[in-house]
Amino acid sequence: MVSFFFNPKSIAVIGATSNPKKFGNAVTINLLQNSNLQSELFLVSRKSQEISGLECYRSILDIPKDIDVAIILVPAKAIDEVINQCIKKEVKGIIIITAGFGEINEEGKINEIEIAKRCNNAGIRVMGPNCVGIQNLNTGLNASFIQTAPLGDIGMLSQSGSFGCATFYAMEREYIGCTKFANIGNGVDVSFSEILEFLNTDEHTQLICVYIETIENGRKFLETVNRIIPNKPVIVLKGGRTHLGMKAASSHTGSIATNYKVLKSSLKQKGIVLCENANDYITALKTFSFLPIPQGEKIGVLTNSGGSSVLFSDKIEQFKLELADFSGTLVEKLSTYLIPLVKVVNPLDMIGGADEETYYNITKLMLEDANISIVVASVVVPPFLEMKPDEHYRGIIRAWNDTDRKKPLISLILFSEEFKDLREHSRREKAAIFYTPHDATFAIKILVERMRLLKKLNQSNEN
Amino acid sequence: MVSFFFNPKSIAVIGATSNPKKFGNAVTINLLQNSNLQSELFLVSRKSQEISGLECYRSILDIPKDIDVAIILVPAKAIDEVINQCIKKEVKGIIIITAGFGEINEEGKINEIEIAKRCNNAGIRVMGPNCVGIQNLNTGLNASFIQTAPLGDIGMLSQSGSFGCATFYAMEREYIGCTKFANIGNGVDVSFSEILEFLNTDEHTQLICVYIETIENGRKFLETVNRIIPNKPVIVLKGGRTHLGMKAASSHTGSIATNYKVLKSSLKQKGIVLCENANDYITALKTFSFLPIPQGEKIGVLTNSGGSSVLFSDKIEQFKLELADFSGTLVEKLSTYLIPLVKVVNPLDMIGGADEETYYNITKLMLEDANISIVVASVVVPPFLEMKPDEHYRGIIRAWNDTDRKKPLISLILFSEEFKDLREHSRREKAAIFYTPHDATFAIKILVERMRLLKKLNQSNEN
Repeated sequence: MVSFFFNPKSIAVIGATSNPKKFGNAVTINLLQNSNLQSELFLVSRKSQEISGLECYRSILDIPKDIDVAIILVPAKAIDEVINQCIKKEVKGIIIITAGFGEINEEGKINEIEIAKRCNNAGIRVMGPNCVGIQNLNTGLNASFIQTAPLGDIGMLSQSGSFGCATFYAMEREYIGCTKFANIGNGVDVSFSEILEFLNTDEHTQLICVYIETIENGRKFLETVNRIIPNKPVIVLKGGRTHLGMKAASSHTGSIATNYKVLKSSLKQKGIVLCENANDYITALKTFSFLPIPQGEKIGVLTNSGGSSVLFSDKIEQFKLELADFSGTLVEKLSTYLIPLVKVVNPLDMIGGADEETYYNITKLMLEDANISIVVASVVVPPFLEMKPDEHYRGIIRAWNDTDRKKPLISLILFSEEFKDLREHSRREKAAIFYTPHDATFAIKILVERMRLLKKLNQSNEN
Repeated sequence: MVSFFFNPKSIAVIGATSNPKKFGNAVTINLLQNSNLQSELFLVSRKSQEISGLECYRSILDIPKDIDVAIILVPAKAIDEVINQCIKKEVKGIIIITAGFGEINEEGKINEIEIAKRCNNAGIRVMGPNCVGIQNLNTGLNASFIQTAPLGDIGMLSQSGSFGCATFYAMEREYIGCTKFANIGNGVDVSFSEILEFLNTDEHTQLICVYIETIENGRKFLETVNRIIPNKPVIVLKGGRTHLGMKAASSHTGSIATNYKVLKSSLKQKGIVLCENANDYITALKTFSFLPIPQGEKIGVLTNSGGSSVLFSDKIEQFKLELADFSGTLVEKLSTYLIPLVKVVNPLDMIGGADEETYYNITKLMLEDANISIVVASVVVPPFLEMKPDEHYRGIIRAWNDTDRKKPLISLILFSEEFKDLREHSRREKAAIFYTPHDATFAIKILVERMRLLKKLNQSNEN
């Protein structure tokens, strides 16, 4: 198991430096900035005596305690000696952040394999080389040179470090975050599958996301995924889905990107949430971070905007989803809260005058209705009649809370990204906002697909 | 012509009120709030003596001056008398904001047609009924009950008023805006085609966007579009592209949505920029607001993120676009600014250490290269090495400015919406940022399509 990498009792940074223009400094600062770090931290530096008040050792061998994990940032040409010292020190694992190996040329490839062999023979596991490192957000461990991810429910594996950074930015934007993060670079020893196994057992991790270009051992990867899928949704964005993309990927990681056409059907069959672009990837993370799995497929829609309702209906049909039929009883109940001008049909266009209370009452009635499994509350923020930009959303969320958030409630508030009060309320309430009909409908689609999958798995368990 | 609606010498608001819960108040306030309004404003109210210091008349007939445009907000049942007074007053045009006509039932349909006939016979043009009104952002005229659109280059026609509101929010977000805005509601007299003709002649309008559900006279619409397309890009989002969407649209406007399958090929053939969702619609507006039309199709890409470059390459192939081959000379020039670890290929991954100056120099070299017609500068904001979040973008924009913005430069800064300095710089420089590979590639696709169209039109003119 690789879990000790994420929960080390002690860490040594080899190649620590006070020069802020070096990655060795970024890793050191990232580790130091958490005053509650549960790992004992040691710095190894040839040049510095101390960094930010912490003593530096000349070599890992000078450290008076056992080391679980050594993080290596020395130049590629100096790495052999450092590896020897780590073996002598009997560390459990090494994270090689240093680049200039298999991603560069054949010689680098041979070098990194040789390093892994030597370490494995000594009982040491290796992450990297050419990686940004790992993070455990639940313990405050940032053993990487990138920014600390926001805290959330997601276990994240990213084959691109920089795409990992960018994903963190999108997570901040959406008020979601990580439990664990790993970028294993060239992946010479510790594999994606092992990280995934670990994330599967991790109690904090509710869902798993993977950005991947190359899958070295496809069969093992699929077997692992197969074990995880019944427990946790796995969201995958594959880079290198086309010839041009594969070419760029091979220049990026030095290995040949896995052919997407071959992979795609296997991944879909396993029940992976496969995203075709970066935007859908974030939407999927948001969806599973905030929304429960529905019990059925029928959708009820309320809105104050005809245009938004039309655009949403188009997406519903494109994604092969289904609107609920309103029962006579429901129509009667809904009517009591609506002005006579409103036609009580699904989608329900309540017209521009609908306010917080109308949204509250109508959302609640739909959430309580047995024929409706998913509710979409769609709003265009009204710029008139003294309405507050966040009042409709407040009504919606109140209704969701009053029904114990049992059904997925999708808030579609068109192009409302710039309404700060709205977004602050969303953050406080730990509830998502979707900003376009596409995103809202994609969310429903993947929730419905997960429901179908779990039903199918339950049935085959019963048989 | 309908241009007088957008440039009236005098306006009367019939149904003005000081009650902030009424649309009559919203229109009044919107008109009053512009102290530089170039139209003389008169208010007509049964109840109020004055609103915000402006005298109210009991009837339009009491106003001592000629009225170009009367905006009507009285209830549907009171409208006949008001129409008669407008005819007697010999106004040039009427905007009927009042709802409760053709969108409700057959009787309403008959009523609105009768009103239009009576007005037309008296030489009066009618916009509406059931509309939110119009805006001329170049003169500060907001004759609608929705918020004033941001000022920009776009002439906008929206069949949904609320989708218009939402589009304004997205425009604020993207630092783009309108010249003119019109929502003509049930469109009983003044038609889409007439508004489009007007936008075509309007000197401020550089591009035109249309949200449409129903096209009453398809042939005329296509003829009009045909005349506009060589001068200005026309961007269309059609609501009601599916059966469900058409059903929702007919409930929304009271008329049957135009079948998209039939329309689609005609629109595409004419060279309309046809968007399949709301997100692409905004991306298209942004693209034509900020970027010049390219002279060729070959794309040069620079990036600091392998993952982002892979995802972008996938999109390039999906959209059938073309990467440029770097010439030997260009490779040589580029190399002088890059570290040896960097492979000088297209897309050019300069690795995480690339800073403002590297971005400036490489962007400039690509913009100056004769084999490259479109440059994509892709960034993942580096969270390390003390780099500033906006420095790469600053370098990129400097290079663009130093080459007189002759070629389209697409800044793809992945998921960077929350970097305020970056967005402020983008606003100041009047330059776009694209946040996902999809959006960046969609922008290139529509620019290339416009270039091909203009070339084709030029060729047929020469023959």
